[in-house]
Amino acid sequence: MGIVKETDTVVLYDSEKDKKYFLNLSLAKGKFNTDKGEINIQDLIGKKYGSVIETHKGFKYVILPCTLYDFIMYKLNRLTQIIYPKDSAYIALRLNVKPGDLVVESGIGSGAMTAVFAHIVGDSGKVVSYERREEFIKNALSNLRKLGLDHRVKVKHRDIAEGFDETEADAVFLDVREPWLYIDKAYKALKTGNMLGILVPTVNQVIEVLKKIEKFPFIDVEVSEILLRKYKTVPERLRPEDRMPAHTAYLIFARKLPGIVEV
Amino acid sequence: MGIVKETDTVVLYDSEKDKKYFLNLSLAKGKFNTDKGEINIQDLIGKKYGSVIETHKGFKYVILPCTLYDFIMYKLNRLTQIIYPKDSAYIALRLNVKPGDLVVESGIGSGAMTAVFAHIVGDSGKVVSYERREEFIKNALSNLRKLGLDHRVKVKHRDIAEGFDETEADAVFLDVREPWLYIDKAYKALKTGNMLGILVPTVNQVIEVLKKIEKFPFIDVEVSEILLRKYKTVPERLRPEDRMPAHTAYLIFARKLPGIVEV
Amino acid sequence: MGIVKETDTVVLYDSEKDKKYFLNLSLAKGKFNTDKGEINIQDLIGKKYGSVIETHKGFKYVILPCTLYDFIMYKLNRLTQIIYPKDSAYIALRLNVKPGDLVVESGIGSGAMTAVFAHIVGDSGKVVSYERREEFIKNALSNLRKLGLDHRVKVKHRDIAEGFDETEADAVFLDVREPWLYIDKAYKALKTGNMLGILVPTVNQVIEVLKKIEKFPFIDVEVSEILLRKYKTVPERLRPEDRMPAHTAYLIFARKLPGIVEV
Amino acid sequence: MGIVKETDTVVLYDSEKDKKYFLNLSLAKGKFNTDKGEINIQDLIGKKYGSVIETHKGFKYVILPCTLYDFIMYKLNRLTQIIYPKDSAYIALRLNVKPGDLVVESGIGSGAMTAVFAHIVGDSGKVVSYERREEFIKNALSNLRKLGLDHRVKVKHRDIAEGFDETEADAVFLDVREPWLYIDKAYKALKTGNMLGILVPTVNQVIEVLKKIEKFPFIDVEVSEILLRKYKTVPERLRPEDRMPAHTAYLIFARKLPGIVEV
Repeated sequence: MGIVKETDTVVLYDSEKDKKYFLNLSLAKGKFNTDKGEINIQDLIGKKYGSVIETHKGFKYVILPCTLYDFIMYKLNRLTQIIYPKDSAYIALRLNVKPGDLVVESGIGSGAMTAVFAHIVGDSGKVVSYERREEFIKNALSNLRKLGLDHRVKVKHRDIAEGFDETEADAVFLDVREPWLYIDKAYKALKTGNMLGILVPTVNQVIEVLKKIEKFPFIDVEVSEILLRKYKTVPERLRPEDRMPAHTAYLIFARKLPGIVEV
Repeated sequence: MGIVKETDTVVLYDSEKDKKYFLNLSLAKGKFNTDKGEINIQDLIGKKYGSVIETHKGFKYVILPCTLYDFIMYKLNRLTQIIYPKDSAYIALRLNVKPGDLVVESGIGSGAMTAVFAHIVGDSGKVVSYERREEFIKNALSNLRKLGLDHRVKVKHRDIAEGFDETEADAVFLDVREPWLYIDKAYKALKTGNMLGILVPTVNQVIEVLKKIEKFPFIDVEVSEILLRKYKTVPERLRPEDRMPAHTAYLIFARKLPGIVEV
Repeated sequence: MGIVKETDTVVLYDSEKDKKYFLNLSLAKGKFNTDKGEINIQDLIGKKYGSVIETHKGFKYVILPCTLYDFIMYKLNRLTQIIYPKDSAYIALRLNVKPGDLVVESGIGSGAMTAVFAHIVGDSGKVVSYERREEFIKNALSNLRKLGLDHRVKVKHRDIAEGFDETEADAVFLDVREPWLYIDKAYKALKTGNMLGILVPTVNQVIEVLKKIEKFPFIDVEVSEILLRKYKTVPERLRPEDRMPAHTAYLIFARKLPGIVEV
Repeated sequence: MGIVKETDTVVLYDSEKDKKYFLNLSLAKGKFNTDKGEINIQDLIGKKYGSVIETHKGFKYVILPCTLYDFIMYKLNRLTQIIYPKDSAYIALRLNVKPGDLVVESGIGSGAMTAVFAHIVGDSGKVVSYERREEFIKNALSNLRKLGLDHRVKVKHRDIAEGFDETEADAVFLDVREPWLYIDKAYKALKTGNMLGILVPTVNQVIEVLKKIEKFPFIDVEVSEILLRKYKTVPERLRPEDRMPAHTAYLIFARKLPGIVEV
């Protein structure tokens, strides 16, 4: 971070109103209108994060970096249900994703999980994402571009029924309606000893996946769900929020063993 | 991964017994005794992960990579309560940690959180860990060495009451008994606009931290707890495990704004 | 149940629209207007629950009993935060409330907890409820009347700082802002060996209550919270609801031992 | 409560050791041996609860009533998985069980749910329990006898495939392996407008039940699970217990409408 670059997404923070504006510099041009006057977008580039910029009326905004969390929660354009940080962070760790890794996934959805993978694999890694629907690809790539992560992602506009091209992926992740149909493809794409991850919203799908996984040489099978409960941050009256998400998805993990596949 | 290196920790998997041996090659020398015969440790180096090695009696083990998750859950030597993957994965994402980052933390504990940070920052990043107790440092470094992550971690054997040396950390994380005493130090060490993370086990500590954070120019304060529930993986009788962790810790996050610190 | 009485609250169910009307017979007089025509209220009395009544236009409604759960969730007039069935059911069992018991509580709130106690103690039991605020008493009694439970409840319009009149209560329950101020009064009102229950929304209050309870001869102290998660009832796509209550209250229980009270 | 009766189960409490003895007076005869000397059992009868009894060596025990909660959690003899208070209290409220009710259930298991129903229906109500296995009946009745609740329970040693004798039950509850096979029998046994409850441990069973319930005129179908989290009761370090039950069972509720049953 440090210095604002022309491809960054920045947050302009109004500390009086505790209000944020998200601004993608690669797309926004000319003037940016706030409710307290205009900002010359070109003036943001080269400034230090944490510094202050003034509108033509003299009002001040703090220039903050847009974290991956901010973007996923507040700015990602959603055409689909997304994978939230509570799940995507655990998925990435559970799949052992790290700088330099090749991650293969399907589908791309709105790109929220893709972004987390791309964030972690770094410039030396690569995320290959298979997706059938062109409108999802277009939207997800737009989201990834705003995050400055699109160069780490290769999208293949293809049905995974045809299989994956990759055979030595460090991790494979499936977020499709009927993942049990593609366990064989995922098995082939994955390095032996490495982790497959699958996300499904219903217990019926978990049941189908487990039935299919049993037929392949996988070990360390885990089915989990994660609940995140936030608290009201008032120290004199500390208590959880009134409501919370009750469910996002079930997460399934399994490790590939070598062996003849008996289907 | 790919090829077994002499600094790796490997997993030898007995598929008949569904049993694993963890073996750190940089420490282990000579012969490794399994209950089915000896393996010449030198023979493991250079083998492909996923390949098979035989004991002198002809029994076969599959050579698997040791993931960060495996190591933290099953092999990390614990002198302290550790931070579990459900929490550490979310903390790392929430603090926006990525390849190349400088992360500052205190204390090192048994190194479980340190390892997750080091795993993500990659060889171009650095984790600086402040710790007062020498036995914790020694143990944590031993754990990090077995993970091949120690070269990304710099330990400072010092009390953070003296402050941090760093002033432009991409993220700061506190896991100490009285974190409210060091909010000012953490504030100074952190880049403006970036995230501070704090972990505490009791609500009394959450209250103290919130009271102190209010006095500094922080925004986006979040207090959360994460529950991970695992399921029994029998597709014909799918149901959660009987018991689960009820609590590990409360997670607190805040973003640094610029400004005069009024304490 | 069985036969509709003139003091009952009944549910008129439109099975085409899956829509319910709640109708309190002791209050409603004359005609009841539905969106499918009028019903003569007098005609309902004496009918069998589960039977059908027709509007003057010939549309049919099923006459259903109004359960305590229905009333609390959908019809209770709320001037305060109420105690929900997931909590009130557990409280009543934990306090060992049963037919014939004398339960002492404060305050009455909107009467949701009072109703559960009154429901269980039956006509041979009694709930004595202390409440300072007249508008709460009026509203709660109105709710209890609609449930046909008001004759089992005696309200005392008084501040419990003056203490309780009762000395042999089978159970005592406190739902007040600062319950720690009245632990001594509750102790005196309660039969030795029996259970005190306290409900508070914040952890700060739990801390204060625990500090005070330690000074009295109580044993079996429990602090609990209950999470109820509902599922979408589609068998082909079984999964939890998207959102749920994250928090209602902390429940505290303690059993009175005999002994000199040292305050 | 008040005075100890010869059919009671009492708790003898040693306040020095914070230790409890449960003693069923209808079964125990002669002397009761504690680690601080003998108590003449006959001497307990007629004493006031909360009073003190001395051993022949002069040590003191407090005589406490045994609550239903105590008995279920600590003294109920278990031949089966039992239904815990967090679930049984909610089930009883959700089924609208109250003094005077007729509750029909199957099977009896170890009698934990039966006891809660019997506790609430009082002497004017009745619980009819169908159970095929004689050893379960014997054990459950022994448990109910120790609670002084057996006179409110009528056990029918019969398979519910033959149907229930009752046709106007205020509530019907099924805790059997394949409850979907008996939805028709339960429907017939239940008063129209009243609630059916079903408990199953696996999601596969929930799916089967929902598929069957759809074919009957039921409304207000609910599937829920309840999590109870306890806290360590130290006010200076308030935090949840380390571990908790992750799962006991899924609870299903439905309300009977009148109508032709189409199976």
